[in-house]
Order: sequence, then structure tokens, then C-alpha cells
Amino acid sequence: MTSVQTYDPRTGARRHAGVEATTAEEVAAVCARAAEAAEELADLDTWPLDRRAALLRRIADRIDAHAGELAALADTETALGEARLTGEVARTTGQLRLMADAVEEGSFLEVIVDPADPGATPPRPDLRRMLRPIGPAGVFSASNFPFAFSVAGGDTAAALAAGCPVVVKAHSGHVLTSARTGALVAEALEDSGAPPGTFAVVYGREAGRLLVTDPAIKAVGFTGSLAGGRALYDLAVARPDPIPFYGELGSLNPVVVTPAAVAARGPEIVTGFAGSFTLGAGQFCTKPGLLLLPAGHGLGPALAEAVADVPPAVLLTPAIKEGFGDATDRLAAGDGVQVLAGTPDTAPLALPARLYTASAAAVVADPALLDECFGPASLVVEWSSEDDLFAVLDVISGSLTATIHAEPADDELLAQRLLARLRRLAGRIVWNGWPTGVAVTWSMHHGGPWPATTDPLHTSVGVTSLRRFLVPVVYQNTPPALLPAPLRDPSLPHRTGGRLTASGTG
Amino acid sequence: MTSVQTYDPRTGARRHAGVEATTAEEVAAVCARAAEAAEELADLDTWPLDRRAALLRRIADRIDAHAGELAALADTETALGEARLTGEVARTTGQLRLMADAVEEGSFLEVIVDPADPGATPPRPDLRRMLRPIGPAGVFSASNFPFAFSVAGGDTAAALAAGCPVVVKAHSGHVLTSARTGALVAEALEDSGAPPGTFAVVYGREAGRLLVTDPAIKAVGFTGSLAGGRALYDLAVARPDPIPFYGELGSLNPVVVTPAAVAARGPEIVTGFAGSFTLGAGQFCTKPGLLLLPAGHGLGPALAEAVADVPPAVLLTPAIKEGFGDATDRLAAGDGVQVLAGTPDTAPLALPARLYTASAAAVVADPALLDECFGPASLVVEWSSEDDLFAVLDVISGSLTATIHAEPADDELLAQRLLARLRRLAGRIVWNGWPTGVAVTWSMHHGGPWPATTDPLHTSVGVTSLRRFLVPVVYQNTPPALLPAPLRDPSLPHRTGGRLTASGTG
Repeated sequence: MTSVQTYDPRTGARRHAGVEATTAEEVAAVCARAAEAAEELADLDTWPLDRRAALLRRIADRIDAHAGELAALADTETALGEARLTGEVARTTGQLRLMADAVEEGSFLEVIVDPADPGATPPRPDLRRMLRPIGPAGVFSASNFPFAFSVAGGDTAAALAAGCPVVVKAHSGHVLTSARTGALVAEALEDSGAPPGTFAVVYGREAGRLLVTDPAIKAVGFTGSLAGGRALYDLAVARPDPIPFYGELGSLNPVVVTPAAVAARGPEIVTGFAGSFTLGAGQFCTKPGLLLLPAGHGLGPALAEAVADVPPAVLLTPAIKEGFGDATDRLAAGDGVQVLAGTPDTAPLALPARLYTASAAAVVADPALLDECFGPASLVVEWSSEDDLFAVLDVISGSLTATIHAEPADDELLAQRLLARLRRLAGRIVWNGWPTGVAVTWSMHHGGPWPATTDPLHTSVGVTSLRRFLVPVVYQNTPPALLPAPLRDPSLPHRTGGRLTASGTG
Repeated sequence: MTSVQTYDPRTGARRHAGVEATTAEEVAAVCARAAEAAEELADLDTWPLDRRAALLRRIADRIDAHAGELAALADTETALGEARLTGEVARTTGQLRLMADAVEEGSFLEVIVDPADPGATPPRPDLRRMLRPIGPAGVFSASNFPFAFSVAGGDTAAALAAGCPVVVKAHSGHVLTSARTGALVAEALEDSGAPPGTFAVVYGREAGRLLVTDPAIKAVGFTGSLAGGRALYDLAVARPDPIPFYGELGSLNPVVVTPAAVAARGPEIVTGFAGSFTLGAGQFCTKPGLLLLPAGHGLGPALAEAVADVPPAVLLTPAIKEGFGDATDRLAAGDGVQVLAGTPDTAPLALPARLYTASAAAVVADPALLDECFGPASLVVEWSSEDDLFAVLDVISGSLTATIHAEPADDELLAQRLLARLRRLAGRIVWNGWPTGVAVTWSMHHGGPWPATTDPLHTSVGVTSLRRFLVPVVYQNTPPALLPAPLRDPSLPHRTGGRLTASGTG
């Protein structure tokens, strides 16, 4: 048996977590049980939507009842602070409850009914379509959100809401928090009468690889690094039966500031930017990693001062700290790159934030300068013409977000051109705000072109994240008594004969 | 320059099609023009939905005006017969018009609006989500449907309806038909004022590989063989920036017949089955390749007779004929496999239909007996107990369809168990019918688990096939004047504040 190590990020001390790496046999057994559970959970007579919703709410209640304990435990493993972590627990349970609401509302089943048309050429049969659970889902937790993107986080909530059993691969950065959260979820599921294979947590890197290739697993959700995500994606698509792999990998999150915005709100933009890129020690997937300022902005000294004022931050794990050092060293060594704030010589554990600057030409000549630095670092690039600006945008790869700071005093066409360009680059356009902070709503889209995600059609946040774990099935001329309840006499939002109906008939 | 060969399938004679294989430089140029066109087509001010719908209808009209000419030309390349081909042209243009209707209706944009909530914790910004075109699409035409799944077929209709330019890789089996259809589409697009890069056809295998890996191409639709589809899928997912690859590869389409159905409708089932598996020379993706009959069915002689009565068929291409010979030779050589009808010695060009039989145990012992034989062949397997039957279902891989023939006189639980099992196996469940024939409707789902498709979330037929070429974008706090029209004051079906509204407000 291999023990999983964890670290105290504030001291660097190794700790034995008391958790063993899951063996290959155990992973296979867990996945086989998940496959059994999948059949029961997919049966809408045994598990009607209100029962599924109640299960999600029970998990939320159980976690809320232990919020203080969980936040304190997670703080010892992540150094993110109990206040932020308590807020994250609330966000996590709010997410579970929003999913419960969506399950009850039922439009996620996308019921479409086309009655038979014997007079059509050729005659058309009765066709009734809905979505059903795809089957057991593998979920990889993230380092940076030990609750909201981890054991009971968004992927788990979406998969369970879709009716899919979940096997979570815990992140090595917070195994104790994962084990405790997992135990609370398991208790709630047991109280709900869910089949035993509905949920499990596995530990260790090899267990993660086995999870992606296990024949019982039908889809994978992942939040993490570009390298780690690509390796697992490659495994998923190389299976004899490839499966969907929904990975959120890396994102630059560019911010474009117009001349009028600098004139109107320069100091406010400086404060907002410094706060946003250092939030959570810069370990947010939506961290603005690039600030595009118009030449002559005059904000350099204010930026340097604001960044110097940010307290040094403790990164999540030794590996992340090392990766951050490597990434910022590469950036600092780039042609034409200058340090605007922050020093590479740092206290052994807490790091000051770092801000670099380079010209538009330097970035266009070496787009590797735009590689994500996961941690409290960002890059300021000056643009002196629209051509300059759009040349930089042309070398940016897909992002989760793109932000515009502009004012009515700007050339209106500039904003239109920026919006048209940025919507091809990112899944969320932020206007006069900051990308950190992701509302969990019906409309939220947390996705984008590669490498922001492995599949630009999908989101890992918001109600539509359910879609990732659902597949359509259409029944042709099937006797009503044998149809799943939502297709018998649609009482959920549905489309019949091409016409959308928001509320049901029955 | 390499010339593309085509064949007269009725004589086997090679013909020079007068079409050159597209060079690497030409493929790159075509894709670059498609990327330019994508920007214009995505602009809903220049290309509002009604203009996009009119473009689709104009293509349909142009093709309909040349239906007879096209069917005659396609018959010389495919031997499918002018009657069937004329019907297929009508289906193709009907498909384009249904897409035009869906574009105008607008719910495919999936507008979701969540108004700002300053009182929420944390305060929630105004969020407005819609779908936008993914970018230029590569489309591979199929051998077996020279219209409905080819140049102006379902994938092209869906991508254009989504607002994406299309580059079609013509199938080598019908290059003349492809070139002529492509010219008609191009004329209609020019009349509609579409940008020049909106549509193109490329020729030759290497052009197809280059299409999948071209950086401008953002998604691929494919209908074809398992081997060919897997090779292209592997290219798409191995790109530095992987793209969605929507492939429809191979499908067994099992048919389960219950004892009561044999008793009630034995002769009718025999006739229906023989007609279905030999329709279009058995070259349908929904061909029933497996008939599961209860032991003691007594239908053997009737099946042999019905199949012997089917006129010999001409297959589409020499390669397909060779593949059919190899596949049926492998099947015939399998342990416990017997020939029920059809002889392997055949006239050089037209082939009689073939029907094989094997026990449930033989199939479970060697699931390779269930590999798809593309052409007029099928396999009858007898089951003597439910355990027998479900053991066979457990070794079947994903299919587009699964069919049940049953009667009220059967054990009702058998039908329920079958439906629960088959919905995990296939995207369409057919009750007391035959799977060949796919209605083009809002509800149709033409998809299923691997290897039926490379992505079980999607369909290549029906209105929801649009989804494959759309990605979400959400605008945060963006001034109304700068929002795309559908988000300003939603007049399309939309969800606002969590509530679904079927008709607009404006």
C-alpha cells in the first residue's frame, strides 16, 4: 500500500494523510459498482426527478452542517484562509441546490415530441426524445478550489443531477479535506437510499489514470493544469471506445483597456487589476494574466505600488510553487520583458506578487510569453495602435474569459471590433469588471476554446454544465405505458410538433 | 496533379471524373477563406437569422430545380436507382428547409438571461448567454447517401444553419455528383451574397487528412467506416488544439423479437426484416445486422425464402464490394456460423443477399461475429432464455438503433427490461418497426455510444444536429447597444431569471 502524502503549505512540512493510494483492483471494483448504480439511478420510476433533487439537497445540507469543520481542515491543507473557504463551502452547497432546482424544473431533459404523421412522405412515426444519464462519470478535483471544484463540487453536482454515479479522483493537495467531504456525501447518499455504487473517492495518480480508462466510466470532468489535463485527455480519446473528456486546462484571461477608460478610471483599474490577479494567491482559472494598456497610460508607478502592497501569498503545494517559479523565470528571461513589481528572491514559503511588462511586438514575436503562470503573476503589454492590439489578440489562445474596460467616449467601433474578436477567444466577455468571481447561474458559461477547455461546447459552471453528462434517446412508436414518465404525457417544459411549451400540459 | 477516379458500379469500368485531387496549398487556401467568411457570417447585424434562413432555402430551391439531372448523374456513380435518388434529393432539400425553419424560430440560440442581482452574496452581474457559430466546419460525405449525407447533406445544412462556413471532402464514390451539387450550392450562395469562403468542396484522401488538421477548421462532421472514421478522429484529437470530431462510424442495429411477436406476426416480421436489411443493397447505417429470435421460432425456411427472393444488388464501389466479401467470409468462417440464405459465389457485379445464423453461445464466445458487414448481409441468433438474450446484448457495442418486436401477450416485464437495456445501447429505440428510414424532425436522434458515433451527445440527423456547430458565449454587464441583437431584448424563445419563455417579449 502506498500512503498519500500531504503538506502543510505554510511550513512545507510533509504530513502523512492517513490515506492510502487506491489500488488498481479497488478502482476497478469501484467503477463496476458505479455501473450497477447507474442502472438503478437512470430508472425514473425508482428515481423520479424530485427524489433526485432531494438527494442533492441532502448532500448540501450535510456539508453545510459541517462547514466550519471543513473550512478549518481545508485551511491546514491549502492555506487559503478560513473566511474564503467558508464562503467556498456556501458556494458549493448553493451549486448543489441550484442543480436540485434545475432537476425539478425538468427542462434539462429536453423533451421533444413529434406525433405520428401518416400522411407525410414517407409516413412519419411517433417520435419522443429526451436526455438520459450517460453513465458513471469520473471527476478530477482541482487544487485551487478544495470544495467548489472538488469532491462535491460542480462536476459532481452536475453528474449526480444528470443521474450519473460519480467516482472522484481526490487532488493530492487536499486529501484530508477530500476524505472528509467524501464521507459526508456518502452519509447523505446512504440516508437518501442511493445505491452503494453512486459515489466514491479514489486517491493517487495511478488511480486517476485507471479511472479514465476503466470501461465502466462513460465521461470525465477535469479541472487542472494543461500538462496534466492533456495527458488524461489523450488517454480518454485513445480508449478502444473513446469517451467525452471535459477538461478545463489553462487560461490567460486577457484584459483590454481603452484610452478613454484609462482617462476616466485609471486608478480604479489599477486597484481592481492588482486585486483580481492576486486573489487567492493568483490561483484562479480566471486570473487576468494579461493587461493590455494603451501606450502613454502612465499607470506604471501606480501598478508597481499596488502590487507591492499585496501581502505575500502562500501557494497551495510545493509543486505549484515550483511551477510558478519556473514559469515566472521563463517569462522574466523573455526578450524585452521587464519586471514592474515583485522580486524573484522571496521568503521560503510566502511569495510576493509579480508583475512584468513587455511591448506588443515582443509578445507577437514570442507568444510563449503568454503562457499561463499559475500563481500571483501577470503581464502588462502596451499597445500603441489598433493594429498592435489586434496583433496581440491574434496570438492569444483560447481563454475562459476576456475583459474590456472602455467608456462611451471611446470610438464606438473599437468596442464593437473588440467584442467581435474576443467572443472567438473566450467563453465569457466581461465589461468594465474583473473576471475572477464566477456566478453560479442558469446563464453562466465557464468554458472556451482550447486550451481553456478540451471541448468548447461545454461549461463546468452553471446549470447547462448538466449537459455534459446526458445523452439523447428517441423512442419510435413505443406504447405509452412503456415510455419513461416524462415522455408519456409531457408535464415538463417540452417541444411538441415543433412548438416549444414552457410549462407542461398535465 | 492527381486525377480522381470514379467507377461505373454496374460494369466495374473505371472512369476519369475530370476532377483533380485538391493540393495541400489549395486546401490551406480554402480553409483560410472559410475563416474569413466565418467572421462575416457570425455577425448577426450583417447576417440576421432570416437572411441565414433564406440562404438555406435558396440552396434547397436550386437543388430541387435540378433534381432529375442530379439523380440521373448519381445513379451512374452509385447504381442506387433514379427513384431512390430522386427521393433522396427531396429529403436533402427538406432537411435544408427544416433547418431554415429552426433558424428563424431561434430557440437553437439557447438565449439565457440572468438580470443583475446586487443584493446577492456575492452581488451578481447581468449575464446574457447565447450560442454562436464554432467556426469553419469540415464535412466528410458518405458513400451511401450521395445527397442526404453528402455535399449538401445533413452536416452541411446543420453547419450553415449554425452560421459556420463548410468545406466538404467529397466521397470518391461519387465525385461527379459532388462536383455538380457543389456548383449548385455555390451558385445559391453567390445569389445570396454570402462571402466567397462560405463553402467549398475538396477531393482526394490526402485533402481530407489536411482538412482535419487545418488550424482554421474548428469542428468536423463525418459519416463513414469505422476504420476511416477512427483514423480521422485520431487526427482531430491529436492536434495541438484538439477539435470536436462528430463521426458516425458503424452500427449493428440489433432487433429483438419476442415469442408473442413470432406467434402473432411471424411472416410479417420475416418480410419486414428481409426488406430492411437489404434496402439500398444493405448499405444503410441503420441496417438491422442482427435478428434475435426466440428458439423454436420456426421461421428459418421463410427467412431463407424471403432472402432468396431479393434481387441481386450492385454495391456502391469496388472497395465496398471487396470489404463486404471479406466481412462475410470472416463471419461465415466463425465457429458455429451457418449460412441460412445467399451464396458466396456470385455474379461478378451483382450480389445476392446473405443471411447467416449462429447460437447465442457462439456469439457470446466470439463477439467479433457481430462486427458490421456493410452490405446486404445479416445474422440471425436464437435465444432460448432471457439470460441467453441479455448475454448477447451485453457483448453488442453501441448502435444507432435497437428494435423490439413484442406484443401485449408477452411478459410485460420483458419489454421493460429490454427497453432499459437497449436505451444504453442505442440512440433510437424502434418499437414493432424497422430501423431503416430516419425521419428528419425536431426530435430525431441519429446517434449512439461508440462505435455508432464518436460522441454520444450528438446527432447527425434532426434539428438538434445544429448543436454540434455552436458554442456558448456569455456577456457580463455589457451595454445593450453592444450586445448581439438576440440578447438586447429577447424576442426569441429564451430563459430569463430561470424561467423559460416559449415566445418572445418583443
